[in-house]
Amino acid sequence: MDVLKELIEQNDTRILLVVLDGLGGLPAKDGKTELELARTPNLDTLAKVSALGMHIPVDYGITPGSGPGHLGIFGYDPLRYQIGRGILEALGLGLEVRHTDIAIRGNYATVEYVNGRPVVRDRRAGRIPTEQNRRITKKIQENIKEIDGVQVIIAPGMEHRVAIVLRFPEDLPEGSDEINDTDPQEVGKEPLEPVGKNPNAQKVAEVVKKFIEKVSQILRDEPRANYLLLRGFAQKPKIPTMEERFGVKPCCIAVYPMYKGLASLVGMDLIEFEGDTIQDEIDTLRKVWDSYDFFFVHIKKTDSYGEDGNWEGKVSVIEDFDRHLSQFLELKPDVLAITGDHSTPSKIKGHSWHPVPLLIHSPYVLGGTSDRFTERECLKGELGIMPAQKLINLLLANAHRLKKYGA
Amino acid sequence: MDVLKELIEQNDTRILLVVLDGLGGLPAKDGKTELELARTPNLDTLAKVSALGMHIPVDYGITPGSGPGHLGIFGYDPLRYQIGRGILEALGLGLEVRHTDIAIRGNYATVEYVNGRPVVRDRRAGRIPTEQNRRITKKIQENIKEIDGVQVIIAPGMEHRVAIVLRFPEDLPEGSDEINDTDPQEVGKEPLEPVGKNPNAQKVAEVVKKFIEKVSQILRDEPRANYLLLRGFAQKPKIPTMEERFGVKPCCIAVYPMYKGLASLVGMDLIEFEGDTIQDEIDTLRKVWDSYDFFFVHIKKTDSYGEDGNWEGKVSVIEDFDRHLSQFLELKPDVLAITGDHSTPSKIKGHSWHPVPLLIHSPYVLGGTSDRFTERECLKGELGIMPAQKLINLLLANAHRLKKYGA
Repeated sequence: MDVLKELIEQNDTRILLVVLDGLGGLPAKDGKTELELARTPNLDTLAKVSALGMHIPVDYGITPGSGPGHLGIFGYDPLRYQIGRGILEALGLGLEVRHTDIAIRGNYATVEYVNGRPVVRDRRAGRIPTEQNRRITKKIQENIKEIDGVQVIIAPGMEHRVAIVLRFPEDLPEGSDEINDTDPQEVGKEPLEPVGKNPNAQKVAEVVKKFIEKVSQILRDEPRANYLLLRGFAQKPKIPTMEERFGVKPCCIAVYPMYKGLASLVGMDLIEFEGDTIQDEIDTLRKVWDSYDFFFVHIKKTDSYGEDGNWEGKVSVIEDFDRHLSQFLELKPDVLAITGDHSTPSKIKGHSWHPVPLLIHSPYVLGGTSDRFTERECLKGELGIMPAQKLINLLLANAHRLKKYGA
Repeated sequence: MDVLKELIEQNDTRILLVVLDGLGGLPAKDGKTELELARTPNLDTLAKVSALGMHIPVDYGITPGSGPGHLGIFGYDPLRYQIGRGILEALGLGLEVRHTDIAIRGNYATVEYVNGRPVVRDRRAGRIPTEQNRRITKKIQENIKEIDGVQVIIAPGMEHRVAIVLRFPEDLPEGSDEINDTDPQEVGKEPLEPVGKNPNAQKVAEVVKKFIEKVSQILRDEPRANYLLLRGFAQKPKIPTMEERFGVKPCCIAVYPMYKGLASLVGMDLIEFEGDTIQDEIDTLRKVWDSYDFFFVHIKKTDSYGEDGNWEGKVSVIEDFDRHLSQFLELKPDVLAITGDHSTPSKIKGHSWHPVPLLIHSPYVLGGTSDRFTERECLKGELGIMPAQKLINLLLANAHRLKKYGA
């Protein structure tokens, strides 16, 4: 990818990347996919004059999580840049993460004290209701603000899940997150000691031990969630920004914290706004249109309905997007790309490995290959089946932001 | 590819990989390929609801031998794992090879003794009939069973060809096969001394020298095949098994020794059976269906007829396979793949570099892209043109044997 960096040139073009999360599908009804079942007159019109294809998010057969899925379409090799579980959990719960931080996933658990030693009875504390989690988490946060000069930030998730950020005074050396999970993975066992695999991680582990002790004291009298098991210790990955790599000034318009977090990892500015509809996102986009040149707009619900196995829901989001398409076009982006970060076929009720439909619109496409923006029509398109991380090359090229290579 | 290994999870799904050797073709008559000329109503029906594409066995323009061709579809990089000529020859003649062994290709040759020194007059001993070869080889084997504690195994091939396995008492260090060919490549020259390029190979070369001397004594009075030239010294490659890499328990159902040998190199169990028809293979498959979860079925004759330039023959094997297709489907494999290890167009009368038609059937494919299982229809399919060694990813993914990558 170093050759790309040498070819970057800047101009005043604008690139708009709209990601419909989990867009790709499989036959859901009458042999038709969600995209094929949706009535999308506006997308159909656009597809006829656009470059179409499919992208493979990570590799053949590999089902990506949201992290690798987004890194790919942002132009990063998802096998090279790995985002630790703790980081993703923290981002998903709206916590900021810095290079001074260790992020951790936590599970409230039930332990019984036998001869003064905790023995795990339920690794998920009976999946306590989320509101109990909020109460308990608040209690912990109020009682633990820092440990040995390390700031402690804790955020409640769903049911028994929390995210913890330990913020050290200085940037942490690489490998500081090499600490084992404390979850013994089995009931009837003691939680494991957190042990650092190197001197830097050992320093972190000392803080973690004290944190666990303090939490145990605070939760001692809780009937179910009387312990906290920790997993997925992770540092913020060192990723060069999109501005450094691709010469763009990017911003992110997304509703859900995880996608904002992922965007922030590659240096996008996060645009705050009220509301959670596609119209709210478009209104926000319009407001910042003069301030950036790369716009990432994230639409979540295609994935959510896919995960639920609700193909009608997924179809309705696609149709909703279609009704808003003209407003995106009215902004006259020099390059418009519409795709997903991965497929979430409602048939599978989860992310999948299938290639993802991709549309690129600019004055410099061939077009005329296909009638609609669907999986099967995209297969006929001029982009073929391509790696997700090469999408950025095409976006930059269509924006005339890449010089000729060689003479 | 280490990421794949981390994602493996096992379940009770079954994957069936049917390889029609040399399947891909070129226009043979009326502009139609062998697959297009064949009447394949059952394959046509299956193709309509399957994922289709083409695979490239090694790289664009590279014509693979049987070794690299099969390694690719077994999920191994054929450029990384190389199978020496001697190994392939030994496997092809039904010899077992172990990590204690040096395998060698031999050619019977005619030499004339000039001042007591052998001078090559015919490098192939006038291509003696195979039955003469058998008689001579038997004579050698009966007279040489071991040399300095090294077991000698020798098997006759076609015409002047033999395979030799030298079985040492212990596993041989890497590089023990670095010995030059003794074939001088020209008549009128003396055979070359076998010389080891390192101390380990030198020890092997000493045994080889004694073997050549003994063989020369035994063959002294033969009119034509009175000498043995050696080529392609090779050790068994160190290849992790499919079980280690992909978590499957694989078996091989094949008629010809070479394909059994290749399968054994990646750790497949070889299923022995009587007969050599597709029906015999299916009957065998049915018997072991409950004992394995990955089944490699090899059908040879598509390649044989292709090599002969006999397109009618190749068409008839494809049609024969089509008539048996329902029996494969009745076993209800969770994932069924049908492909070749390379193309053998009858027009070329040999292996070729052309991509190979590929069909994957599972509940998790898009389908509906194509009407038949032919080269041109596969090009319209959802798999695109893909590297052979990524096939295993798709097989495992369709069998839900790969966890999600990243969160």
